Amino acid sequence: MKDFIDTNRFTKQELLDIVELSLAIKKCIRNGYYPPLLKDRTLGMIFQQSSTRTRVSFETAMQQLGGHAQYLGPGMIQLGGHETIGDTGKVLSKLVDIIMARVIEHDSVEKLAASCTVPVINGMSDYNHPTQEIGDICTIAEHLPQGKRLEDCKVVFVGDATQVCASLGFITTKLGMSFCHYGPKKFQLSGDHRAIMDMNCQISGGRYLVTDDRQAAMRDADFVYTDVWYGLYENETPKEERIRRFGDFQVNRELMQMGNLGCRFMHCLPASRGEEVTDEVLDSDASIAFEQAGNRLTAMRGILVYLMRGRQTYTPLQRAAAKEELDRFLGERICGGYREGSGGEKRM
Amino acid sequence: MKDFIDTNRFTKQELLDIVELSLAIKKCIRNGYYPPLLKDRTLGMIFQQSSTRTRVSFETAMQQLGGHAQYLGPGMIQLGGHETIGDTGKVLSKLVDIIMARVIEHDSVEKLAASCTVPVINGMSDYNHPTQEIGDICTIAEHLPQGKRLEDCKVVFVGDATQVCASLGFITTKLGMSFCHYGPKKFQLSGDHRAIMDMNCQISGGRYLVTDDRQAAMRDADFVYTDVWYGLYENETPKEERIRRFGDFQVNRELMQMGNLGCRFMHCLPASRGEEVTDEVLDSDASIAFEQAGNRLTAMRGILVYLMRGRQTYTPLQRAAAKEELDRFLGERICGGYREGSGGEKRM
Amino acid sequence: MKDFIDTNRFTKQELLDIVELSLAIKKCIRNGYYPPLLKDRTLGMIFQQSSTRTRVSFETAMQQLGGHAQYLGPGMIQLGGHETIGDTGKVLSKLVDIIMARVIEHDSVEKLAASCTVPVINGMSDYNHPTQEIGDICTIAEHLPQGKRLEDCKVVFVGDATQVCASLGFITTKLGMSFCHYGPKKFQLSGDHRAIMDMNCQISGGRYLVTDDRQAAMRDADFVYTDVWYGLYENETPKEERIRRFGDFQVNRELMQMGNLGCRFMHCLPASRGEEVTDEVLDSDASIAFEQAGNRLTAMRGILVYLMRGRQTYTPLQRAAAKEELDRFLGERICGGYREGSGGEKRM
Repeated sequence: MKDFIDTNRFTKQELLDIVELSLAIKKCIRNGYYPPLLKDRTLGMIFQQSSTRTRVSFETAMQQLGGHAQYLGPGMIQLGGHETIGDTGKVLSKLVDIIMARVIEHDSVEKLAASCTVPVINGMSDYNHPTQEIGDICTIAEHLPQGKRLEDCKVVFVGDATQVCASLGFITTKLGMSFCHYGPKKFQLSGDHRAIMDMNCQISGGRYLVTDDRQAAMRDADFVYTDVWYGLYENETPKEERIRRFGDFQVNRELMQMGNLGCRFMHCLPASRGEEVTDEVLDSDASIAFEQAGNRLTAMRGILVYLMRGRQTYTPLQRAAAKEELDRFLGERICGGYREGSGGEKRM
Repeated sequence: MKDFIDTNRFTKQELLDIVELSLAIKKCIRNGYYPPLLKDRTLGMIFQQSSTRTRVSFETAMQQLGGHAQYLGPGMIQLGGHETIGDTGKVLSKLVDIIMARVIEHDSVEKLAASCTVPVINGMSDYNHPTQEIGDICTIAEHLPQGKRLEDCKVVFVGDATQVCASLGFITTKLGMSFCHYGPKKFQLSGDHRAIMDMNCQISGGRYLVTDDRQAAMRDADFVYTDVWYGLYENETPKEERIRRFGDFQVNRELMQMGNLGCRFMHCLPASRGEEVTDEVLDSDASIAFEQAGNRLTAMRGILVYLMRGRQTYTPLQRAAAKEELDRFLGERICGGYREGSGGEKRM
Repeated sequence: MKDFIDTNRFTKQELLDIVELSLAIKKCIRNGYYPPLLKDRTLGMIFQQSSTRTRVSFETAMQQLGGHAQYLGPGMIQLGGHETIGDTGKVLSKLVDIIMARVIEHDSVEKLAASCTVPVINGMSDYNHPTQEIGDICTIAEHLPQGKRLEDCKVVFVGDATQVCASLGFITTKLGMSFCHYGPKKFQLSGDHRAIMDMNCQISGGRYLVTDDRQAAMRDADFVYTDVWYGLYENETPKEERIRRFGDFQVNRELMQMGNLGCRFMHCLPASRGEEVTDEVLDSDASIAFEQAGNRLTAMRGILVYLMRGRQTYTPLQRAAAKEELDRFLGERICGGYREGSGGEKRM
């Protein structure tokens, strides 16, 4: 699997490998060692829409692992403007080592990946948000209720069927967990979503429920998750309209108390305080939303390292021979003294 | 002091430490050694307004010290849009190691700093410009008149009471120097500014004068400093209007000759040649404005290193143990050979 | 020659040195060694117009050679707005080690270079595109027809007399090759261009032809090159108008077959498929357009290293002394323990 576009294309074990890898690198860095696993590597970041968390996480991740991320924001690069996405993919594959794209239409990142010879990561589309999924599972794994395994947990998403909601449904059912989307009838996960979750559950033994029944939804909830009500890929829904649609689905003290004792609150952020979640919940000890935001970085490092593993490896001898040949060329052909490495010695 | 928002919150000795540190790192780099004091560190740079000198200086500073700066420009990140500044601060604290913000309203950087667990640097607000202050003192220290100490120098700011003017008043009075704002009555430093300078002088023994008396202002001037007349944070004042307001306060040969022999010219730049300063003065040997611009970089390095000192230190043993544990995990769990470090050996 | 603005200011041997250097570094990196020839160096990239290939190539090049590139895009920095280009050049020379500028008017990059003390690279203007030239020659050198040297090759540019067309004429005639511009009479290289090519051919023994005669143009062609028809620096020519102008000058199977057997297709990209080139040609085995795009990066590395050679060199002893002096200062004056280098030891 060259690309990271959709977690449904990975096995449960592969996804758990990525989660474990992410947590192992996190621990390593917490203890002061930044592993240069992506040294000399360049990530091209294409953003068709602006982003804070995704962009900053990727850029920090590359830096911490010894590489570099290039920000190609809206207006800086086009996908499908003067040239076809296919041609852009072929060109970028020659100029960077790995690509991430936050796209407006999911099809764009699929087309890009098909034309690229380097790995492509989906940094969110109108369909799903797979890097968020890995960060969320990292966060859940770090806050498992006493005595429970991942597979024993119930995760409830409250509110609009955003791509984050769909993604949460995908990863939890893939991993054999229990998932619930609690939202108003007109804004629930679709038949297509359910078909995928059905398939996931069949293999993993997971379960899911899509409902507007408050009691059924919150019963035994270990994690309660929500997202904004204004949508992301259409014109923003006006506030009055969204309150009318989702007002009954606010995550507040009352709702949280219907879940398990010690039930945790999650949010992909940004949060509209007072809409989908109250200040009281978001700022409470039950809230792990800000740790979850930090695990965006955790996930990015793991995904990047996972996709780049085994690409272009060389023996120390190969590299030493390459260095020697270049040094000889520089010494013989280009006069004037090259500064090299941290040594900076003058060369003849 | 976690943050660098306002030099008035630091003692004279602390500010001198930062200046000396800045100059020590400058000397070190001039002699060919780039100290990796910020290796693996990431600076998030938030710009509510565009900037050349501040942005380029910070980005170069991080690179030269082994770290990396992320440019989060206008439109790339919001302060107080979809989420509260407080939430943005909490999230960014998880994703980067230190933050700088150039803000439109001073209160934004204060709020940001209050919510961040990482250090926050004020990259200019409508109130002050403290990184400019450090660069200016570095420049003055490098050009002290023969036989004078900092405390013996008189610095005259000519023209509009911009935030650069206020900042120059703050730092000079804090350090026990003599400061003068020479500007038209309606555009002089306010009572609030004077109250702060009064307090500073009481402790430091410095002096200050706010006046439109040309003779009194320029008497014994060692450094003459000016800034643009069009303002920065309102709609730009039309040219005719600003000439009417400040036309008598141009820094030209005649004005410079009223100061001490060897009196130096400074400018925070950009300069509107022919308005606040003549070509003759800006391009003269008396002008140290371009060296001053270079000392923006000098100051950024010093401030960054000062704020990051002592944060997250580890023993070599801790780091070696962390590396070993990750290596073992990679070897056992993730197959396919990781390139690592500059070695790039294939791992089993 | 401090700057890289116009290849006509370099000798044939100097240009061949840059090409060879570019290819030597390419080979080295292909074999797994990224030479840190630009360690600690910062490139300032000024873009008056947006760009994909040039920007990504330069940013990757700096990263791969151990340095860093700053993206200063449209709206982030002005050339000739609030301050003169001369002042901007003087300031940037204090803050970065080398500058590239993609400008709208060629005169801007000339003015910038004149005011900068650091090297300036022309990243394309309305007059020429010299970094493209080096990448193109690298590509041609890698695909020389059997038994031919560079000087034996004929390169035919088909279509509008863009700055890429002019640049190709400059470099091929400079290197003693045979060049042809095959385009409609009203859109052919001008008298000024021909005067330069005349001069180049006189020294190098090269030849050139500007014609709308299909047979004469394509006879013995080894490389057929084209560019878009909509122009780059005016308002984009409407599609109907450009088809009317250039429709007879499409590179298609028929045209390619008029050249030598094994004749190669080149394009600076982006391509408007179905306009200046057919899908069949661009996607054929004869097309080296995507390798050519990859050689933008090849060329950038070579040019950067060439311009920075011999600048600011230090002996290991100088650097060690600088480090020791800074370490002593940090130890004595700034308490709290500095993390340093990858060691991160706590210092007293």
